[in-house]
Amino acid sequence: MRLGLTETNQPRVVIIGGGFAGLAVARKLQRSEMQVLLLDRNNYHLFQPLLYQVATAGLEPDSIAFPLRKIFKRYRNLTFRMAEVTSVAPAENRVITDIGPIDYDYLVLATGSRTNFFGRSELADKVMTLKSIPEAMELRNLMLENLEHAVLVEDLKEREALMNFVVVGGGPTGVETAGALGELKRHILPRDYPDLDIRLLNVHLLEMEGRLLGGMSEEAGEESLAALKKLGVKVWLDTGLADYDGEIVKLTNGKTMAAQTVIWSAGVEGATLPGFADNLVAKGNRLSVDQFNRVSGFENVFALGDLAAMTSDDLPKGHPLLAPVAIQQGELLGENLVRLRAGKEMQPFNYRDKGALATIGRNRAVADLGRFHFKGIIAWLLWTFIHLMTLVGFRNRMVVFVNWLWNYFTYDRGVRLILKPFDRKIPRQKKENRKSPTSA
Amino acid sequence: MRLGLTETNQPRVVIIGGGFAGLAVARKLQRSEMQVLLLDRNNYHLFQPLLYQVATAGLEPDSIAFPLRKIFKRYRNLTFRMAEVTSVAPAENRVITDIGPIDYDYLVLATGSRTNFFGRSELADKVMTLKSIPEAMELRNLMLENLEHAVLVEDLKEREALMNFVVVGGGPTGVETAGALGELKRHILPRDYPDLDIRLLNVHLLEMEGRLLGGMSEEAGEESLAALKKLGVKVWLDTGLADYDGEIVKLTNGKTMAAQTVIWSAGVEGATLPGFADNLVAKGNRLSVDQFNRVSGFENVFALGDLAAMTSDDLPKGHPLLAPVAIQQGELLGENLVRLRAGKEMQPFNYRDKGALATIGRNRAVADLGRFHFKGIIAWLLWTFIHLMTLVGFRNRMVVFVNWLWNYFTYDRGVRLILKPFDRKIPRQKKENRKSPTSA
Repeated sequence: MRLGLTETNQPRVVIIGGGFAGLAVARKLQRSEMQVLLLDRNNYHLFQPLLYQVATAGLEPDSIAFPLRKIFKRYRNLTFRMAEVTSVAPAENRVITDIGPIDYDYLVLATGSRTNFFGRSELADKVMTLKSIPEAMELRNLMLENLEHAVLVEDLKEREALMNFVVVGGGPTGVETAGALGELKRHILPRDYPDLDIRLLNVHLLEMEGRLLGGMSEEAGEESLAALKKLGVKVWLDTGLADYDGEIVKLTNGKTMAAQTVIWSAGVEGATLPGFADNLVAKGNRLSVDQFNRVSGFENVFALGDLAAMTSDDLPKGHPLLAPVAIQQGELLGENLVRLRAGKEMQPFNYRDKGALATIGRNRAVADLGRFHFKGIIAWLLWTFIHLMTLVGFRNRMVVFVNWLWNYFTYDRGVRLILKPFDRKIPRQKKENRKSPTSA
Repeated sequence: MRLGLTETNQPRVVIIGGGFAGLAVARKLQRSEMQVLLLDRNNYHLFQPLLYQVATAGLEPDSIAFPLRKIFKRYRNLTFRMAEVTSVAPAENRVITDIGPIDYDYLVLATGSRTNFFGRSELADKVMTLKSIPEAMELRNLMLENLEHAVLVEDLKEREALMNFVVVGGGPTGVETAGALGELKRHILPRDYPDLDIRLLNVHLLEMEGRLLGGMSEEAGEESLAALKKLGVKVWLDTGLADYDGEIVKLTNGKTMAAQTVIWSAGVEGATLPGFADNLVAKGNRLSVDQFNRVSGFENVFALGDLAAMTSDDLPKGHPLLAPVAIQQGELLGENLVRLRAGKEMQPFNYRDKGALATIGRNRAVADLGRFHFKGIIAWLLWTFIHLMTLVGFRNRMVVFVNWLWNYFTYDRGVRLILKPFDRKIPRQKKENRKSPTSA
């Protein structure tokens, strides 16, 4: 296996991850005198904030993904390789991947975050998670298959279990998912399933803390709670998931309920790669970085966004896991690498807080913008506009816009399809010779 | 397991398949005094004529599928069940399904067609086929993964094999697929893969006969050949696939070529169900029917569209396997069932030939309409208009239209994504009690 890069004396920047942070670095480096290699396990950039709409049949998966090669086609100094990075050997300035080892001069870790089960890995094959397109499509399939199945079962208890949707975690993902499920229950499912008593369909949202949207203002928490209740979502505050065996949900308050669909949105952790000492890994599995996003103890290794714990006395937990942080850190790092090459000093990171938004069904959202707080239709329009504008690619924006207009005026969701994976997989060529040197 | 139908004295019509034919019957029966039960293994209607555009990254899968329950929500006498029919017991007026046995008064077989390997079933796990959305998505994945892999391989021969696309069969599907691949090669891939020598990418189209589009006019065949050649597609007439072991394609003319992607569009056959005597199965695995689409020897079993062999002296092969035939037969059967219940005579089927169309890349298509023949941009606009109008659902039409406009003006294909299936499947509840009686 060869890496196929052109030989050059320019320093090589390896970026792991084509999310918000990785793309921002690449964009800032596109006119630099550096060779940039971006690795991602997928061939697309994923717009994660709208994943829950794919899972709840509001958007097609393809409209929130954008081919990375298309973004990079005007970047002359950038090479893209679809690869899975298995570990980092920072002492040797090398990353180990499924297409071979790759040497770097500068390493940018922009791997984002992954689902955190808080040590309860036995839940992993029982609950649904929402961090990727395959997961969102599987949740859509599972939910719709359970309803098709509910039509057929004789036993009322069994039918209730198929129609019980439990969302664990009252952060933005949990709140938005529960809201979208509440809308499905109210507007779509009664018409689609005249043969089901939709009153049996229940959406539960569990939150360990005493309020929703802990990262946002008090008002946002209260308003999202009121909006969810209006949609018929049963919100359980101060209540977590004690146990789930695939059939029965046990709550921390001792109650139990039967549910075939449990969605775990209780938390994420940094998607660290093996190769860094334990003392570099801070709370939430994030890598400790300095003000320049440099991983502690290294001159040429950087971590960004969700993966980076840039803590200070004012900010003991580091920055929130939000797209604006990732984008701003990525842009600054790109500029700093250029400064570094020019012998100039790097600039420290200062987060320009763009606020936070969450939506709960049609016409309802909450927004914290600096000291200002918005709710209702104004916040919802703001949410809609910002998400449309942040989507990569005009085609995606148009398709999402058409879908949203459609959903809005018809109270419909067009894509409630059960798309099963292909069951007769054509074997791929093996990735051989993984050990061959790939420095050029 | 229960079927969950309301008890009624009305006769029960069971329709197997929610394609063009099945939908047409259901539509004509919606105000009849009959209980209609439609079964499909998927929960959506698939617009098959555009599957090749999903496979070649021109359209998202969700835009050519439409939820069946949404179509039926205004049909008061119709019940939909997602079920796989395993066999028919016509002597007992019963179909056997994975949700239990189901009794009928009238049975409508509208299962369409499936890929025909002409007895060479060993090809099934080596070639790609194009009859369903999962297959189209798998082809898109395979093609894009092979290109990502081609970037990395050292060996030139191996790289050529990864960049060789062989389409088998020069009917409409084969011609349209080869044309779309030719366009990808010309407009998209050189910009996406600056690290590949796109001259190594070859699209081959194999056709056993001496001409393309055998079902259309001579002119259509010649023009499609010229259009494909202009796009750089290598067309092999009088040449078939002799053998393929997953690596080397052997042609019937003795030549060989290495190819990792072989697309089988050489033919289809009726998707018959077990339960009918061999003498009822005509050429192409279609069920012999009379002028009323009644399966020979039965009063209350009907077969439609691709599945039906309605032969006569003028028409020894039966009607062509086209959507208009399926729709017209379905509509007539719906009307005939109403006539039958009213004690009136059924009307025989007369095909109103709507002509045939095929498209070969941008601005190029061929159309046979009665004695008239169109080509070039007029035929292409006609093709575009007819396909848009035949798509079910305004949302789908809008999304397809946006995509086509985008693809047309930008020479782009927005959805070249490798969407892998979810690898950690949540177990579904078993479908139990399959033997329980389900007459009501």
